[in-house]
Amino acid sequence: MKRLMRKCVENLKLYPPGKPIEELERELGIRGSIKLASNENPLGPSPMAVRAVRENLKNLHRYPDANAYYLREKLAGKFGRPMSEIIVGNGADELIELVVQTFLSPGESVIIPGHAFLLYETFARSFDGSSLIVPLADLSVDLEAMINAVASHTKIVFINNPQNPTGKALTRDEISRFLRELPSDVIVVLDEAYIEFSTDPEVASGLEFLDSCPLLVVLRTFSKIYGLAGLRIGYGFASRTIIDALNRVRQPFNVNSLAQAAALAALDDDEFVKKTLTLIKEGLAYLYGELDRLSLSYIPTQANFLLIKTPLGARETYERMLRQGVIIRPMDSYGLEDYIRVNVGLPEENSRFIHALERVIA
Amino acid sequence: MKRLMRKCVENLKLYPPGKPIEELERELGIRGSIKLASNENPLGPSPMAVRAVRENLKNLHRYPDANAYYLREKLAGKFGRPMSEIIVGNGADELIELVVQTFLSPGESVIIPGHAFLLYETFARSFDGSSLIVPLADLSVDLEAMINAVASHTKIVFINNPQNPTGKALTRDEISRFLRELPSDVIVVLDEAYIEFSTDPEVASGLEFLDSCPLLVVLRTFSKIYGLAGLRIGYGFASRTIIDALNRVRQPFNVNSLAQAAALAALDDDEFVKKTLTLIKEGLAYLYGELDRLSLSYIPTQANFLLIKTPLGARETYERMLRQGVIIRPMDSYGLEDYIRVNVGLPEENSRFIHALERVIA
Repeated sequence: MKRLMRKCVENLKLYPPGKPIEELERELGIRGSIKLASNENPLGPSPMAVRAVRENLKNLHRYPDANAYYLREKLAGKFGRPMSEIIVGNGADELIELVVQTFLSPGESVIIPGHAFLLYETFARSFDGSSLIVPLADLSVDLEAMINAVASHTKIVFINNPQNPTGKALTRDEISRFLRELPSDVIVVLDEAYIEFSTDPEVASGLEFLDSCPLLVVLRTFSKIYGLAGLRIGYGFASRTIIDALNRVRQPFNVNSLAQAAALAALDDDEFVKKTLTLIKEGLAYLYGELDRLSLSYIPTQANFLLIKTPLGARETYERMLRQGVIIRPMDSYGLEDYIRVNVGLPEENSRFIHALERVIA
Repeated sequence: MKRLMRKCVENLKLYPPGKPIEELERELGIRGSIKLASNENPLGPSPMAVRAVRENLKNLHRYPDANAYYLREKLAGKFGRPMSEIIVGNGADELIELVVQTFLSPGESVIIPGHAFLLYETFARSFDGSSLIVPLADLSVDLEAMINAVASHTKIVFINNPQNPTGKALTRDEISRFLRELPSDVIVVLDEAYIEFSTDPEVASGLEFLDSCPLLVVLRTFSKIYGLAGLRIGYGFASRTIIDALNRVRQPFNVNSLAQAAALAALDDDEFVKKTLTLIKEGLAYLYGELDRLSLSYIPTQANFLLIKTPLGARETYERMLRQGVIIRPMDSYGLEDYIRVNVGLPEENSRFIHALERVIA
């Protein structure tokens, strides 16, 4: 009898078939819960993006543009990169998987920093590759250890910058040195889902290094700063060779037409970006102050979320907060048993979070 | 030096970086062209779906439901299948790829009928498998030849029903015999993207055979009958074992939230479905009559499109029609050098197509 599944698939975890918040609330007998668990934009979606969606509803029966022509044209202008070096995906998640699918041969491996985005590892496994996880040093990405970990079978190195879930970010000098010291036949994926939130002038985007690093891939998303997580749209920059290869594997109609229209419009929504950044800045100032007052330790962040150490442990804190109607992210599934991750919300959400946390740990 | 791409990727065709219609029109100096090339619904999207999209715009900043809970619940009710045996994808295209990714081990092969959907072959290649194409017999799927083609390394058999691009469909008896005679360790994917258009009472859906065939996968889409191609949403039915395996590989946020909301609403839009079916029926009657008048041969169809033999050849007809502002599908890329495929449009589009074709072949 033939084996049914591919061998690697048997080793993949089945994503827990969770329930929508509405169902969860019904089960717990609570109402009006708030969600600070997924680093979503508390202001909602970009209004200019929403307007563009409205204007494109009459053409939903048409297939989307397989080449995201207008969006790539706009991104090219905004970031000063050629259209042929830009790709658009069904969320940055799809682009991460596409890089693995396109480049990782069976038996090759990827290098991932400790406690990083869980999907990096899943994708590597799903394409018959392996992952090497390089532990964080003092909760920071250990670039030197990552370089030392490169072996002949290493194909891809993933780095989140700013890093999820710590919120720490790499500086221009750190990235520059890392890219210089890394063997030149290793693909580097810089996942910059949160880069727009970074306030430290020393923090740099990988975009600056594209011309000097032919195997660098820089990924961005419209999910966070533009508030479009529900639409699924991310984008990436790399050399034409890399982008051409990804396009060979990419499904032609991977990005829905409303996402393309919304993203195109969002890129002009400077007012929304400004409001978002102000809200995050003020929210963080409030949260830092309150966490200090509660003598809880946390990591100052370059993103729109915060990693907080909790005396109750991740899971217990999560469950108690849930019963208070505050949904946060327990980080035990990321291997951080004593930490929760919470994104900055609206002022009233931040305050509700703090007061619930205060009650819960009392 | 390490090989950059996976070996199989080098053999994949680079999807031609085409331009949106607007750009094409500008280049050709034409305006107001009509598109009958992609089997889209000429009535536009389901109005109930569009309303649902409008009502869900305020939550675009939230990630979509990773489990498409409400949509699967609705599909379960409508089709009388358990939720655990239903999966939703970013278009049926994604589900086709997911089946290959989950089940096709390197060196295994898929069997595909001649001139079928080009992506079946691409996906097999992209996962280091091979494809065996079984030629059509008199432009019909040759089920007996497909069964005879099964070898020990055969993992998946793909069948479109109704078939694209011929518009022919398999009957209940044909499917039943095929499933009975096929070795029981081969996965059968019945791609029913057009099944709702079928008018022949002998034509059957694979849904009837799910309980007796543990390795049967039935795929459907919201792109055609519900006019939601732009949103990217398809769905599939299979045994729980198959669905669980697909869910291990599937990206959690593969289906955007507007697509989920639109699809949920569309399933109640009986009036739109009825209007669509009437339009297609009347459009086909008109087209059959006019093609007879022009002495052009065509295949009577069970779908919303028509395969037509053209004396000029596919490519030449396509190019001349394009200059008339009528975009159709030349089937040379599907290996049918003398055929074009055209979908039924609005009455005025059908008439414009016929008159353009008459001029072009004169």
